[in-house]
Amino acid sequence: MAREPGGGSPKYQRVADDLRARIKAGEFPEGRLPVERDLVTQYAPISQGTIRQALAKLRDEGLVESRVGSGVYVRSWRPIVRNALQRLSAEQWGGGRSMWDIDIEDRDLEVRDVQIEQLPAEPSVARALDIPEGELVWRRNRKYVVDGVAVMRSTEYIPDDLARGTRITQVDTGPGGVYARLADAGHAPVRYREEIQSRPPSAAEAADLQVRAPAPVAEVVRYAFDSADRVLTVNRMILDASRYLLQYDFPA
Amino acid sequence: MAREPGGGSPKYQRVADDLRARIKAGEFPEGRLPVERDLVTQYAPISQGTIRQALAKLRDEGLVESRVGSGVYVRSWRPIVRNALQRLSAEQWGGGRSMWDIDIEDRDLEVRDVQIEQLPAEPSVARALDIPEGELVWRRNRKYVVDGVAVMRSTEYIPDDLARGTRITQVDTGPGGVYARLADAGHAPVRYREEIQSRPPSAAEAADLQVRAPAPVAEVVRYAFDSADRVLTVNRMILDASRYLLQYDFPA
Repeated sequence: MAREPGGGSPKYQRVADDLRARIKAGEFPEGRLPVERDLVTQYAPISQGTIRQALAKLRDEGLVESRVGSGVYVRSWRPIVRNALQRLSAEQWGGGRSMWDIDIEDRDLEVRDVQIEQLPAEPSVARALDIPEGELVWRRNRKYVVDGVAVMRSTEYIPDDLARGTRITQVDTGPGGVYARLADAGHAPVRYREEIQSRPPSAAEAADLQVRAPAPVAEVVRYAFDSADRVLTVNRMILDASRYLLQYDFPA
Repeated sequence: MAREPGGGSPKYQRVADDLRARIKAGEFPEGRLPVERDLVTQYAPISQGTIRQALAKLRDEGLVESRVGSGVYVRSWRPIVRNALQRLSAEQWGGGRSMWDIDIEDRDLEVRDVQIEQLPAEPSVARALDIPEGELVWRRNRKYVVDGVAVMRSTEYIPDDLARGTRITQVDTGPGGVYARLADAGHAPVRYREEIQSRPPSAAEAADLQVRAPAPVAEVVRYAFDSADRVLTVNRMILDASRYLLQYDFPA
């Protein structure tokens, strides 16, 4: 074997690991991987089927993409760097800006399928908001598309007494969004908690974000608290994990 | 079909989604799933093979486990709640405690395969520590096992001028660990940054942590800074994502 990427695991996986390392090392500056017959030579003795399996694995991970008639390319997607502290600072929404201004810089953001409903809190939502089950809440559900790619589904819940009569109940919440409107009403968020779990997507999530197994999603749940430590909103976000770098700054 | 878990995706996946929802709703209080022939009845018309595929998916996700001769059970693993702010506070390591005291409470923690080396910084490490390539660094590599389960591999890099002559170069770093020793030497961490990406494991990582595809790992990279904004250490952690709930608190 001309290249020897370590033993123990299935051969296609070892080849995938080696190719991944070569991609990260910047070995393919034009972004184009060698054609299959060259990979067969490089990893000989190996079958073309095994090479294809390795490439399929990298494709599933979102690392490469096939361009019909042209070959396999390193995917050029730059991860969205999501700095929690900066994007959610009072300075940001207090200044009427969107938290997305920071994340995507010069990229194209589209918010799709905004759906607003008022409905009784189901048990998990009531628990998260620390309100009685069945109390009225507003649910704001939407999908975020960056540079034409669906990257996140967000479902936010706000208790009715905080949302009623404000633009939180409207598609366009106005400058600074939901947090700015809560601040207008005397409930400015003073702190947040985010909880992250990564896992394979459900079938519905995979279809919604066009994530292909085994690429994981990250489930990020954000709680916003006011100065009286009341939970103002809870936001359950499903992220295509391959699109994001989550960044948290905190003091010692 | 007695239970109709939505259309569009392969049948086994729809069954897996439905079973997952039932598990989360607490429908199996003893933790034992119905036996295969009962599941065939519940989801009829369906083959036993499809039921098995659905159960295999939940097993791969770490949600259920098979107990030989007994059936399929909801896995009883409680996620490790890793609160970044609490565990890394100066109060914690300054008091000589381990950050793990907070995460695992009453659980059994074992640190395995501690390996310490002094070596020249490779490019990615040099970049992360903001030092010239090839400068000497100490690498502390170890695996964390909680309740008998490998949950994390941690590889930490510390510049030689900060580590040399301290217990950072020893297996037992003493009370409060690496950060306390840096503080002793006048370089107390004052802030951290953690960056998170989730992805399928490499073959080596899957073997190391016994993660089975498509269960993802989370790669958490932590930078510690002193008051002069010097990068003191960079720690690259590979977590079995199914074992963790990552929690971050931050101000507005």
